[in-house]
Amino acid sequence: MEAGLKFTHFDASGNARMVDVSAKGETVRRATAEGRITMSEQAFAMVREGTMKKGDVLGVARIAGIMASKKVDQLIPLCHPLAITSADIGFRFSDDGRTIHIEATVGITGRTGVEMEALTAVSVAALTIYDMCKAVDKSMEISDIRLVRKSGGKSGDFCRQEPSESTGHKP
Amino acid sequence: MEAGLKFTHFDASGNARMVDVSAKGETVRRATAEGRITMSEQAFAMVREGTMKKGDVLGVARIAGIMASKKVDQLIPLCHPLAITSADIGFRFSDDGRTIHIEATVGITGRTGVEMEALTAVSVAALTIYDMCKAVDKSMEISDIRLVRKSGGKSGDFCRQEPSESTGHKP
Amino acid sequence: MEAGLKFTHFDASGNARMVDVSAKGETVRRATAEGRITMSEQAFAMVREGTMKKGDVLGVARIAGIMASKKVDQLIPLCHPLAITSADIGFRFSDDGRTIHIEATVGITGRTGVEMEALTAVSVAALTIYDMCKAVDKSMEISDIRLVRKSGGKSGDFCRQEPSESTGHKP
Amino acid sequence: MEAGLKFTHFDASGNARMVDVSAKGETVRRATAEGRITMSEQAFAMVREGTMKKGDVLGVARIAGIMASKKVDQLIPLCHPLAITSADIGFRFSDDGRTIHIEATVGITGRTGVEMEALTAVSVAALTIYDMCKAVDKSMEISDIRLVRKSGGKSGDFCRQEPSESTGHKP
Amino acid sequence: MEAGLKFTHFDASGNARMVDVSAKGETVRRATAEGRITMSEQAFAMVREGTMKKGDVLGVARIAGIMASKKVDQLIPLCHPLAITSADIGFRFSDDGRTIHIEATVGITGRTGVEMEALTAVSVAALTIYDMCKAVDKSMEISDIRLVRKSGGKSGDFCRQEPSESTGHKP
Amino acid sequence: MEAGLKFTHFDASGNARMVDVSAKGETVRRATAEGRITMSEQAFAMVREGTMKKGDVLGVARIAGIMASKKVDQLIPLCHPLAITSADIGFRFSDDGRTIHIEATVGITGRTGVEMEALTAVSVAALTIYDMCKAVDKSMEISDIRLVRKSGGKSGDFCRQEPSESTGHKP
Repeated sequence: MEAGLKFTHFDASGNARMVDVSAKGETVRRATAEGRITMSEQAFAMVREGTMKKGDVLGVARIAGIMASKKVDQLIPLCHPLAITSADIGFRFSDDGRTIHIEATVGITGRTGVEMEALTAVSVAALTIYDMCKAVDKSMEISDIRLVRKSGGKSGDFCRQEPSESTGHKP
Repeated sequence: MEAGLKFTHFDASGNARMVDVSAKGETVRRATAEGRITMSEQAFAMVREGTMKKGDVLGVARIAGIMASKKVDQLIPLCHPLAITSADIGFRFSDDGRTIHIEATVGITGRTGVEMEALTAVSVAALTIYDMCKAVDKSMEISDIRLVRKSGGKSGDFCRQEPSESTGHKP
Repeated sequence: MEAGLKFTHFDASGNARMVDVSAKGETVRRATAEGRITMSEQAFAMVREGTMKKGDVLGVARIAGIMASKKVDQLIPLCHPLAITSADIGFRFSDDGRTIHIEATVGITGRTGVEMEALTAVSVAALTIYDMCKAVDKSMEISDIRLVRKSGGKSGDFCRQEPSESTGHKP
Repeated sequence: MEAGLKFTHFDASGNARMVDVSAKGETVRRATAEGRITMSEQAFAMVREGTMKKGDVLGVARIAGIMASKKVDQLIPLCHPLAITSADIGFRFSDDGRTIHIEATVGITGRTGVEMEALTAVSVAALTIYDMCKAVDKSMEISDIRLVRKSGGKSGDFCRQEPSESTGHKP
Repeated sequence: MEAGLKFTHFDASGNARMVDVSAKGETVRRATAEGRITMSEQAFAMVREGTMKKGDVLGVARIAGIMASKKVDQLIPLCHPLAITSADIGFRFSDDGRTIHIEATVGITGRTGVEMEALTAVSVAALTIYDMCKAVDKSMEISDIRLVRKSGGKSGDFCRQEPSESTGHKP
Repeated sequence: MEAGLKFTHFDASGNARMVDVSAKGETVRRATAEGRITMSEQAFAMVREGTMKKGDVLGVARIAGIMASKKVDQLIPLCHPLAITSADIGFRFSDDGRTIHIEATVGITGRTGVEMEALTAVSVAALTIYDMCKAVDKSMEISDIRLVRKSGGKSGDFCRQEPSESTGHKP
């Protein structure tokens, strides 16, 4: 195991704590996360129609995801309360006729990153789609929630490079 | 498309609403959901060690998931506020040395089901694991969040039967 | 002053309290409230267009109002926490080219009425419209928020009869 | 329609988002909003008496309004979370024997204005008055909630000038 | 150690869970808790004066305590969400010129007791007094927070009998 | 009474307000609070065992306390919303075999102190211990919650010096 690597949310005795970030500078930070929900072709078709006509599932899911990005410190025990400065959620219908892709980008000028905010926005948007479609399909699956990229802060930028193991897109 | 199927969260004009469940009887209901988070072997080993010794990632994630199951109506716009009567979260380390399985069961004596509560508990537990391990691995993935079974209520019981498309376990 | 009338939220010494409703039976209750927001003709036109095409102000306001109806006990100090069973919000564009009417109906099977839930849903929906339009018009006004009718419960049904003083619709 | 005016809460495709304010400087900002609630002469007299003796309706409403100004980002979907630095609510009994005027002023040193915080404080204070008086009068009306003035920030100061259409105070 | 006694919030493996109360009947339950805050004579005198004239510290603390009794499930991880039916907080100025006694009673018709609701109401009322007096005295102490009595439910009634060790009131 | 001393949370008319801190500079601030919970020897032994083996009461209480330090502005009416930068909670088993000591330290880079955050963290950690042990002992007492020290900010540092009156540890 690589020396020095540790979980910062524990102190030397293994007790959970909120990491002290008071010495970190305020910088512009941004994080993008993604995920997807897979459903029956019928549910998929109904969501797609609704988005264009009426019964806008994705409009509701977008609001839910944005609102969730403001509640992360209330959901994830050791996250710092953050005054995020932007939040954006996009959806894309896959060609397979069954999958909706979700991408969320959150920004802040602050002392700590916003990857948990982006990941939570994606998760809650997906759960909201599930909720709104569950009368039609109870077998939906939410998958591949992960960080796409993050910038700002001392630890340097991150950009997902390797293909996802779980999507099966091998190089 | 099958006749009669519709998204109950919209009225006839396609406007979102909270479905009226006042006519439904109070019954004992229960729902179980599952999901998994995949991480580097190093992060996995650190979580497994911490659980047994100190730095208990899963203990924190369990609390986060249980607390999230009580906040579903604040996260998912059209969910009813529910007084759930039980919540339980279990974790299992996979033999692949990289995957932690999460399962949550929520119960209620009420007028509507608790599948969103179980799914949200799994999602927030997974996000908490991500948060606590992200200093070591930023490429973790949360996948296969889905309903396993549900009982109680007029619409009958549900039990997931088909293998999951996204895990690749074909029959 | 009519004898016997009193503010139930105070005890005999004038101290605030949450009224004891444990002896009241659970009945089906329903309340409808209304209100309106008046804006410039330009902002009004932009909202109306958006509703039909894109940039759906009212869709967001509807979600905000429904979610607020679930948070009333966290906003209004002496309100009981309630597990509401339905919530619905409708909008109507007035012929004057400047006013949007808002109506919310909330239901419950419970021990106390839901008029505060309906009034809060209308208020927060109106505030959300304000928020979304304020880049175009800062002089909007929210008015005539009031109870339209309520049913269920021991105190009997209520139905607003007299015309509103502030709308100037004298009989 | 004036060219260039647009609702900032939507992107070019009409999708809701939380506007990016990371590039805006932190300045001292302040906003004042007002509103009124009209009730029966009896309820009005009871509130006025209670304020001076016991059963302090306005004291409770003031606390509710101040607390609500801290929850705006949880109520209004696209509002930024803000660390407000001051909040103040005043009440005035009108000579008409039926109307209570409410005024709220909120301040911040931040990247975005606090008009929604002031407007929400007024709205929730009014709703709390309604809640506490509804055993005596169910026909109360909340009206004329609007921004009075705002200062700080790039878009310049705002000060309400024209008389309110809905109060009938024509020049 | 007495046989059979166990912490119900853990399962057989020692994992935290929300205890299943779905099989318990709905009964009328009530719990009373108490506590006290001790401060300098000066701060005490200022609170007492304010209560009678203006600057009502206890009025604000009462509201805070009542509101906190509605948030217990959000504060204490394994508490069930409860729709409490009454909440009442009283204060008493001690003859020692330094101590304010706090007592809270909470009621419910439900499947589980409300002692945590009463204890939390007392705690948050005391913390609010601390907050409002801390400009004058930073050495205040909150003590003797405990359950006084509880009724309803299968486990029988509880009534505190022994004198408190920490108040020094020996028999 | 010393001249000039006043409760800052009231204006000149005695009305509650959130104090204006916009003119205060952002400095690094820190506050430490403590408290204790006393229980039967049996409950104490069970907590101590669980901490080392399984059924970790203090691990859950630590998470609850840290999360509560992020919710202070929602609990204490006139507290400012704060983006705290660190939170830490420690427990110590007393030699008396009945008392668990709790200490919390919270930090911020901000315009106002965090003593309420530290005191609230201690209170909620203690309440959580109560909740988790109440099946075994209903007579527990939470006492001696007080500020230990605070640093940063214009009013100078504070360090508790005198022995606590209520613990009876006279010099």
